[in-house]
Amino acid sequence: MYRLVHCDAMRTSIATVCMSGTLVEKLHAAAAAGFGGVEIFEPDLISAPESPEEVRALAERLGLTLDLYQPMRDVEGVDEPAFQDVLRRARAKFSLMRRMGIEVVLCCSNVSTATVDDDAVSASQLRRLGDLAQEYGVRIAFEALAWGRYVDDYRRAWRIVQLADHPAVGICLDSFHILSRGHDPQAIEDIPGERIFFLQLADAPALSMDVLSWSRHHRLFPGEGSFDLTRFLTHVLRAGYDGPVSLEVFNDTFRQVDVRGTAVHARRSLRWLEDAVARELGSAAPADFATLADGGTPVGFDFVEIKAEDTSSIEELLETVGFTPRGKHRTKPVTLWTSGDARVVLNEQHARDLDPHIAAVGFDVPDAAALTARAAELGTPFAYRRTYAGEQLLDGGTAPDGTEIFWSSRGTESEPTWAAEFEHGEPLRDSPIIAVDHVSLGQPWQVVDEAILFFSSVLELPTASSTEVASPQGLVQSRVIQSPDGSIRIPLNVSPPILSGRPAAMPQHVAFACDDIVALARAARARGLRPLPIPRNYYEDLAARFDLDDGFLAMLRELDLVFDRDAQGEYLHFYTATVGDLFCEFVERRGRYDGYGAGNAPVRLSAQGAGSARADIVRA
Amino acid sequence: MYRLVHCDAMRTSIATVCMSGTLVEKLHAAAAAGFGGVEIFEPDLISAPESPEEVRALAERLGLTLDLYQPMRDVEGVDEPAFQDVLRRARAKFSLMRRMGIEVVLCCSNVSTATVDDDAVSASQLRRLGDLAQEYGVRIAFEALAWGRYVDDYRRAWRIVQLADHPAVGICLDSFHILSRGHDPQAIEDIPGERIFFLQLADAPALSMDVLSWSRHHRLFPGEGSFDLTRFLTHVLRAGYDGPVSLEVFNDTFRQVDVRGTAVHARRSLRWLEDAVARELGSAAPADFATLADGGTPVGFDFVEIKAEDTSSIEELLETVGFTPRGKHRTKPVTLWTSGDARVVLNEQHARDLDPHIAAVGFDVPDAAALTARAAELGTPFAYRRTYAGEQLLDGGTAPDGTEIFWSSRGTESEPTWAAEFEHGEPLRDSPIIAVDHVSLGQPWQVVDEAILFFSSVLELPTASSTEVASPQGLVQSRVIQSPDGSIRIPLNVSPPILSGRPAAMPQHVAFACDDIVALARAARARGLRPLPIPRNYYEDLAARFDLDDGFLAMLRELDLVFDRDAQGEYLHFYTATVGDLFCEFVERRGRYDGYGAGNAPVRLSAQGAGSARADIVRA
Repeated sequence: MYRLVHCDAMRTSIATVCMSGTLVEKLHAAAAAGFGGVEIFEPDLISAPESPEEVRALAERLGLTLDLYQPMRDVEGVDEPAFQDVLRRARAKFSLMRRMGIEVVLCCSNVSTATVDDDAVSASQLRRLGDLAQEYGVRIAFEALAWGRYVDDYRRAWRIVQLADHPAVGICLDSFHILSRGHDPQAIEDIPGERIFFLQLADAPALSMDVLSWSRHHRLFPGEGSFDLTRFLTHVLRAGYDGPVSLEVFNDTFRQVDVRGTAVHARRSLRWLEDAVARELGSAAPADFATLADGGTPVGFDFVEIKAEDTSSIEELLETVGFTPRGKHRTKPVTLWTSGDARVVLNEQHARDLDPHIAAVGFDVPDAAALTARAAELGTPFAYRRTYAGEQLLDGGTAPDGTEIFWSSRGTESEPTWAAEFEHGEPLRDSPIIAVDHVSLGQPWQVVDEAILFFSSVLELPTASSTEVASPQGLVQSRVIQSPDGSIRIPLNVSPPILSGRPAAMPQHVAFACDDIVALARAARARGLRPLPIPRNYYEDLAARFDLDDGFLAMLRELDLVFDRDAQGEYLHFYTATVGDLFCEFVERRGRYDGYGAGNAPVRLSAQGAGSARADIVRA
Repeated sequence: MYRLVHCDAMRTSIATVCMSGTLVEKLHAAAAAGFGGVEIFEPDLISAPESPEEVRALAERLGLTLDLYQPMRDVEGVDEPAFQDVLRRARAKFSLMRRMGIEVVLCCSNVSTATVDDDAVSASQLRRLGDLAQEYGVRIAFEALAWGRYVDDYRRAWRIVQLADHPAVGICLDSFHILSRGHDPQAIEDIPGERIFFLQLADAPALSMDVLSWSRHHRLFPGEGSFDLTRFLTHVLRAGYDGPVSLEVFNDTFRQVDVRGTAVHARRSLRWLEDAVARELGSAAPADFATLADGGTPVGFDFVEIKAEDTSSIEELLETVGFTPRGKHRTKPVTLWTSGDARVVLNEQHARDLDPHIAAVGFDVPDAAALTARAAELGTPFAYRRTYAGEQLLDGGTAPDGTEIFWSSRGTESEPTWAAEFEHGEPLRDSPIIAVDHVSLGQPWQVVDEAILFFSSVLELPTASSTEVASPQGLVQSRVIQSPDGSIRIPLNVSPPILSGRPAAMPQHVAFACDDIVALARAARARGLRPLPIPRNYYEDLAARFDLDDGFLAMLRELDLVFDRDAQGEYLHFYTATVGDLFCEFVERRGRYDGYGAGNAPVRLSAQGAGSARADIVRA
């Protein structure tokens, strides 16, 4: 893994609750990913066999500051006997904080023991707690939980802090608690920066559910959800806050997966956000906020690489659809096949026992060198390929699902320069295939959020749409990465969890765009291609859904073509059988159709499942 | 699997969308589980290579009626051009239904194309659709979707059907659409039974989220959620409905798991509901509704069986806590250990390569013979054990997680009669252990809903509580099965999905109740037991949370005891290290404490994880 080192970067922190593992594992992972500090989530400390002093010493060795102790619950809005108990708890925790050298404690608004709905009472209790905190040299950051019993709005929390009027009592802002309730973050700018004692950031998907469950299970790292965190952080910076920008993300998945990967992933999200804010604020940005190098959004697919011990079955397939074999690489057991602007690289190197699968995708980008710098700054693990003298070295990184992503800048050349490394090719054939339309990558359920951030932050490719399709093995969630002009399209298909142990269960695929799918389908059949058979029932339903001409319908059925139509245009496509871990699709977009025929996917998944994939699951 | 055969039972049906697999697999599974019919979910047919005629013929051979074709969407509340398109679609679908011999089609209220919010218009369009339906010999069941654009209440749908006033137009009732919105089902009794053309049942957990997502992903089979389906079905029967009782359950898990298991599971839920309704209505119940045999709620744990190739490590553990070895079984490599009313059976038969794990749990029940009959009626797979002359044959079944459950009736005897089959035992020792307090069974995430229904329907053990605890590997969901008097307690702990391929990752455990945990802990230590070590940090936090006496706190810490207190009482407990796939816990309940010390579980899980379980996940 790449280690991020920034001398003048934004101060960053992460709550230990964001990650799996033990407290010691979390500290190691946060440091390795380049975080400046951590928030100690109390249950992680309580469960740790290490003493507070050991934790402090380890953090020091790792170069991590302990930025926050959290949470203390139910400290205000209570009657006097209950508050005496709060003070007793607080003495123990403040003393612990002093032993650990932690200066700030998060006190969240009361959810369970509050009986007094009165700002003056809450303020007075926070003030008394502030007096106690001062004795221990610590400070209190008061936070309005979105589901606080009385205090559930940061603006009210700030009024209480103002009333408390105590140097050891300030406010903690958490983007989730504010944005989940739809509260306007503009008023943050009215808070003096030095009164903001801490800042926690979390993104979240747009969900319509109770805010407590949403918060506890579905938070995401910045850039992965629907919150405008760039704007949020801008308000906080304008207020004059100069403390750490910290992540507090409760997420069922991140609690399970490898802590080291999560830390790198989390750190990437903050680096992306730092860049977005620096660009937004321009010269008004804090001096320590740096922009990222800008490689630009990819303008096209450079190549798709399919790897296998034996790639003959793919060669046969490419032959039947009219690709031209462009020769063998001069130093590697690799061949190149092209049709129009579609390039397929077949790689048999270091591929023992591997079935055909998509190993890499190449992109044509505006500025490859800048993109390499950007990827490094975002903690992308590099992809290595051996090259020999005179061969082009492609830079690249590994996506969260393991697919390698390469980039180069072709400029105005009609072919990438690396294509010249292939020898003994045949003369170019004529074929209706003109380009790669999309590359669909199956994602294990536990990496898809990280994949979304990877494509949006490293490659500046946003998520365009999200849908769900039924398969005989369960629902498949499909999230489409797409460049604004549609030249790059990458549907990420998330397998049902039951299949998570079987990576090939949800096959990948490459879809090739063509300008005459009917001619292609007929020519391919004449050369021996057997497309994935589509049931008759499908065509009966198609006739009921769309008022299609009988001849057109008969043609679709004869060629196993599937069809979609919307207000923008029409979509005709057909599939091959699955070869190894992938299949191919051929598509023709008519008009300005911009989708993927999602309604046809269940038919395709069922036809594929009927072959072999389900044989080991059930046989009636 | 046991095949249900009922001559005079309630008519049952299941929508094919409830199950995974292909249409043919679904039909086989539904028939094998004893369903009378199925609803054909249109996408399943469209994806099937079999023709409508083949599907019809297969259903006939399997003895299944095709009870419903579903769904037809967006048929009413539209302008005239749109309605002409509805008629065109309807002709195609009605014709298809005639070929398949399906008489009823589900038409749901318009969600996307409706532009006219007028009962008269919807009624007029349904009437015209009814005219068309009559030509094809089919009938229309109109259903109000909970998220219908204008029609989202069954009472309004019924008004529209009344206005339509057509013999081929009736209503479809779906418990989810009615109960999810909190609509009172009482008014169902005002609908003449012959106007209710179809009935769909689904249960659901109490969730606070948008109703569409709740419906599409989280429905459950009756008895597994929070809806009162007994009352709901009672209203429908009082209205005079005599058609099939059909399940329509959209559930992400059931879409993934083995179709045959889901069908048996689904059928069990309806058999349970039939019994509940028959008891509720008594002599007013339909003649074909039968009650189940009633074995009664278990009154105590009979035994816990631990199986392994070598059980010595468990014997050593039981020895240190003061259990008495009661001898070896006269015909099997099985030993019995007891203390008070706690009986542990150690089984080395047919256990090659097996690590110690909980293989079976025995219950003392009021009427074992009746329970056996009940289990059979509920499609429980039987558990087989070889017995020899003179030995007691225990009846039993297999729970969804594979644990075998046995039952027998001890009556007023102090020991079960099978205990006499053990020979060469030692004289009973004195020990503070008095009984089995609870047995905790780790559940793969995909079986827990079925497990909830298994315990509630077969053993009449309801779910008492549900909670979540954090572990270093992710959140563990804990659902507690508990008899009303607390004599049976079974926490079902659901592992995080990431661990689903590793069944032992979330260990099972047996908790023994004792009347003096301090004496037990001291005596066990003196005999060499090393309890699971609890971190010092835990005790510091305990002191902060509860105002505990210093001496008491020191004693807890010395003995690695963990502690909880609530308004009902106190709970002191300690754990052993994990042995194979299980560990033991020893508990003392003081006062009327009824919980499980959930707050201590993260500390325990972390201490267990620190040992070995996580070694293969991460090493910092």
